[in-house]
Amino acid sequence: MSGAGWVKIVGVGPGPASWTTPEADAVVAGATDLVGYGPYLDRVETAGQRRHASDNREELDRAAHALDMAADGARVAVISGGDPGIFAMAAAVLEALEGGEPGRWDGVGVGVVPGLSALQAVAARAGAPLGNDFCAISLSDNLKPWALIEHRLRLAAEADFAIALYNPISRARPWQLGAALELLRAVRAPATPVVLGTAVGRGEKERVVTTTLAEAAPEQADMSTLLIIGASTTRRITAPDGSERVYTPRWHEGLS
Amino acid sequence: MSGAGWVKIVGVGPGPASWTTPEADAVVAGATDLVGYGPYLDRVETAGQRRHASDNREELDRAAHALDMAADGARVAVISGGDPGIFAMAAAVLEALEGGEPGRWDGVGVGVVPGLSALQAVAARAGAPLGNDFCAISLSDNLKPWALIEHRLRLAAEADFAIALYNPISRARPWQLGAALELLRAVRAPATPVVLGTAVGRGEKERVVTTTLAEAAPEQADMSTLLIIGASTTRRITAPDGSERVYTPRWHEGLS
Repeated sequence: MSGAGWVKIVGVGPGPASWTTPEADAVVAGATDLVGYGPYLDRVETAGQRRHASDNREELDRAAHALDMAADGARVAVISGGDPGIFAMAAAVLEALEGGEPGRWDGVGVGVVPGLSALQAVAARAGAPLGNDFCAISLSDNLKPWALIEHRLRLAAEADFAIALYNPISRARPWQLGAALELLRAVRAPATPVVLGTAVGRGEKERVVTTTLAEAAPEQADMSTLLIIGASTTRRITAPDGSERVYTPRWHEGLS
Repeated sequence: MSGAGWVKIVGVGPGPASWTTPEADAVVAGATDLVGYGPYLDRVETAGQRRHASDNREELDRAAHALDMAADGARVAVISGGDPGIFAMAAAVLEALEGGEPGRWDGVGVGVVPGLSALQAVAARAGAPLGNDFCAISLSDNLKPWALIEHRLRLAAEADFAIALYNPISRARPWQLGAALELLRAVRAPATPVVLGTAVGRGEKERVVTTTLAEAAPEQADMSTLLIIGASTTRRITAPDGSERVYTPRWHEGLS
C-alpha cells in the first residue's frame, strides 16, 4: 500500500505558459512521469520526468497506463490541453478507474487540476460573448450519436443560450459543422453574432473572426477552432480603440 | 490621444493564488489603478497601485469609473473573481462602453484576461461532472425574468446537459434554488448526482457535498456555492483512495 503513488490530470490551458496556473506547474514539477498527447507534453517545462507521449486517441489506454504506473509508486501527471474537465482527459481517467478490475489500483490518489478552457480564451479575445447563460457542446460524434447532438443544439437554440462549439470539424468529420450551422439558422436570426477563434493563445497561428450566423461557413474552421454562437441579446460593438467586440449583456428583457 | 491608457478586466480565479494565471498577475503588476469589489482586491498583490474598492453591485458605475480613469491616462485593472467573461465584470464594462457618450473614452484600450471560473473549480474537486456537453445558468433574477430562467432550466434538462448553477441563493433571493430543483425533479431521475461546491479553493471554508437530485436542498447552499446537476449518464464512483467521485462519461448511447 505504502508504495502507491498518484495520478493527477493537469490542465495546462489553451497554449501559452502565461495561461497555465501555478498549481499546474507545481504538479508537473512534482511528478515522476508525464503522460499525454505529444504536443501537450511539449508545452510543459520538464526536469528529468519520464515522458510517455501518445497520440490524441486511445484515452482509456493512456489512462490505464497512468494508473498502472501510479500503482507501482509513480507520481503521474496526465497532461491535458485546456481544462481536463471540459471535453478532455479527466472523464477518461475516471471511466478507466470505474472499469478496472477490483483492487488493481488500490491506494492510488486521483486528482484533477483545472485549467483555462478554449471557450474562455476565445471569449476573452472577442469581448464577453458568454456573459450570460451559455452551453458548451462538442460536435464530435465519435462517442455519441449525431441525433443527440442535433437534439441538444435545437434545445440550446430554443433556450437562447450562447453556444460554444468544441471539436467543430476534422478530416474524419467534415460535414458536422455545416449541419449544425444549418440547424441553428432555422432557429436564430441571421444577424446573430458568431465568433470563430482558432489556435487562440498560440502566437502567430491565432485567428479570431467575428461574423454572423448567416455568413459563418465551415471553411473558416479547423481542428483548433472553437466557435461561439451568440444569443438573441448578443451585440457587436466597436471599442474606443477601434477593435470590434462581441458581448452578451447581463440583462434580458423578456422570454426571448 | 497619446494620453489614453487602458482598462483590462482581469479574472483572478476562484480564490487561491495558485489558481491565478501569470498573465493576470502581470497585468495587475502593470496597472496604476485597481478597481473592484473589496474582497477581490484583497486577493491580489499590490505594489503601490491606487485601490478603488466598491461593493458587489453597481457594476456599470464601476465600469464607467474605470473607463474615465483610463481616458485620463491610467492603466486600470478591473479585478473580477473567477473568469470575468462568465457571470462577471467583462460584460458590464462592454455594456458601459456601448452606452457611453461618443468620444468620451476615445483611444482607451480594452481587454479581457481570462481566469478559472467556479464551475471548473467545483468540477475538479468532484471529478469530471462536466465531462460531456453542459450548460451554465445564473439563478439570479435581478437582471432577467424568472420565467426565462425556468424556460432555460426546462430545456437544459430536456437536452440532458449537465447543468452548472451560479448565484443559487442569497438573502434577497431565498426561494429560487428550491424552485429550480423542483423543476429539475420533474424531468430528471431522483438518483441524478448533484454536487454542491461552496467556497472551493478558499481553504477551510471549502465544502464539497455530493448528493442526489431527490435529496438536494437549498439549505445546503449559500452565496458562495456553485451546484452541478448531472446528466442522465453522470455516475458516482468510489476512487481507489476511498474518495467519492462524480463524472460524466465522454460517450452517450442514445437520445437519453
